[in-house]
Amino acid sequence: MPELRKDPIMKRWVIIATERAKRPHDFVGTKEEASSSFCPFDYGNEHTTPPEILAFRPADTEKDSPGWWVRIVANKFPALDPEAEPDKFGHGMYDVIKGFGTHEVIVETPDHKANLATLPYKQVKEVIWAYRERYKALEKDPRVRYVLIFKNHGKDAGASLEHSHSQLIATPIVPKRVMEEIEGSREYFAFRDRCIFCDMANQERLEGTRIVEENDDFVAFAPFASRFPFETWILPRVHQYNFGSIEADQIDRFAAILKSVLLRIYTALDNPPYNFMLHTGISGEEGNQYYHWHLEIVPRLTRVAGFEWGSGFYINPVPPEDVGRYLREVELKKQ
Amino acid sequence: MPELRKDPIMKRWVIIATERAKRPHDFVGTKEEASSSFCPFDYGNEHTTPPEILAFRPADTEKDSPGWWVRIVANKFPALDPEAEPDKFGHGMYDVIKGFGTHEVIVETPDHKANLATLPYKQVKEVIWAYRERYKALEKDPRVRYVLIFKNHGKDAGASLEHSHSQLIATPIVPKRVMEEIEGSREYFAFRDRCIFCDMANQERLEGTRIVEENDDFVAFAPFASRFPFETWILPRVHQYNFGSIEADQIDRFAAILKSVLLRIYTALDNPPYNFMLHTGISGEEGNQYYHWHLEIVPRLTRVAGFEWGSGFYINPVPPEDVGRYLREVELKKQ
Repeated sequence: MPELRKDPIMKRWVIIATERAKRPHDFVGTKEEASSSFCPFDYGNEHTTPPEILAFRPADTEKDSPGWWVRIVANKFPALDPEAEPDKFGHGMYDVIKGFGTHEVIVETPDHKANLATLPYKQVKEVIWAYRERYKALEKDPRVRYVLIFKNHGKDAGASLEHSHSQLIATPIVPKRVMEEIEGSREYFAFRDRCIFCDMANQERLEGTRIVEENDDFVAFAPFASRFPFETWILPRVHQYNFGSIEADQIDRFAAILKSVLLRIYTALDNPPYNFMLHTGISGEEGNQYYHWHLEIVPRLTRVAGFEWGSGFYINPVPPEDVGRYLREVELKKQ
Repeated sequence: MPELRKDPIMKRWVIIATERAKRPHDFVGTKEEASSSFCPFDYGNEHTTPPEILAFRPADTEKDSPGWWVRIVANKFPALDPEAEPDKFGHGMYDVIKGFGTHEVIVETPDHKANLATLPYKQVKEVIWAYRERYKALEKDPRVRYVLIFKNHGKDAGASLEHSHSQLIATPIVPKRVMEEIEGSREYFAFRDRCIFCDMANQERLEGTRIVEENDDFVAFAPFASRFPFETWILPRVHQYNFGSIEADQIDRFAAILKSVLLRIYTALDNPPYNFMLHTGISGEEGNQYYHWHLEIVPRLTRVAGFEWGSGFYINPVPPEDVGRYLREVELKKQ
């Protein structure tokens, strides 16, 4: 049974994922195994994954068989246990929660070699619909306090399978990083009576130098205090608290800007490893006015080392003003 | 001129290190250059580094010549500028500080192939003396608010040179991560009237399962909420706020436990990449009662990916109770 344990000083939580437990010799010598030729996400291998939770597929095809275009299954090696009750207990001075949580994999395409950046726009839209559907289903579970959708692309970004996929983890507590964003935007709202994300989007559009792209509903920019080279955020232009509130025409434009920004990064940096994380407000909680959902894309080009770990400071050798210009000027080949 | 920029939501600072600026094609394809055969930290190459700030060397040898056993120089590619004044200014809604700071390299040994874990105990002691000397000198600078001593060992931990060295960065603000530790320990003190680090050391010694080693002055353990496999902390057993207050006999015992813990990790995991970070209270500030200096060692065995970046949660597949047992049971060969 995995456990959530809280660092009493920093109040950050860790998941001690006993189901994945490793012994020291597992870390010695061998780096990650090379990706084998077998892929559980290819057509015909549906029986090698846990049963599908959701799939977009023709009505005349069967569950867990080929034909789907987006497919969601439980992670075969979940960090958390969906059957657990999130009971809380103490261990001396420490706090523990039993490891309840949901860990799902969104297979973004049946095409083993495809890349989210170069997938047809229509397919990216389907992926966003799948995100929304799972998000809305999970936020109804009273044990769930937060749903994080994220993607690891490339081995250096932590992807263990090559086949294009994203992931979703639902946790019984609000993660520290999200809580800090919510607190930070609450403070700003108390001071200014405006949403800090709306203000950022406005200043970015006013200055223009860090803008990567925009459309009617979304704006993408390299944040002023970017932690990483080529870090890019995508925000709804109109204030929107919860990702679950995204509507059909917004999904069209979110898919368009996401695909296009990923394609710019793919082209400028020759398909670099990257992570993206979708941050959303917490449904049914206060904060509607001051928090604003967004997607953070961070290419993994530099190593995080002792200084960053020790300080929470980041050293970024590429000014975001340069990133804005480079990414705006990328020539996008017709897909 | 580098700039410190503040993320207005998270209040984390980043260093936009323009002196190290890179263009997108610098990130394309080529991974880090292989370490060349020339090493600026070897005897005879002292003229290829910035002039030495401090060196332990025989009285009859000259500055910036061979003969030293520990040598400290400015980083040749500093993230911050020691000549700058830390002026503050606004940029629209954003906060900026001119990039003042000191970035030094502590060359731990003249032996190019040596490893801190297997260096003679006496030499590790000299390294700690060098840390203390630079720490005490820099904390006197009124522009300096924090001095972070850290080490990157191995390429996967961010070391760009193989020759054993640690680093020190002095910043004009207290880093967010340190501030959070100070705040967290302040809250605990307000509630319990005791130092949280002292309480942790006591609970760890009481339980014993996560203890790696202890001596008269220090205790080393795998923290209950370890973020990473084989994460190990070293704390003074008696309450001590500021690393600068460490005394001669404590230095002996700190060197002994540091060397021994690193050797256990080196032996158990076959010389893995790791970072360590020394966290200390801020001199001249309040907090003497509730903060407690310590060293955090984190072997780099797993990749930090989208979930960790997006949530601040960590997934750790190795329970710290197992780490305590493994590392206690390592057979240390006589050095």
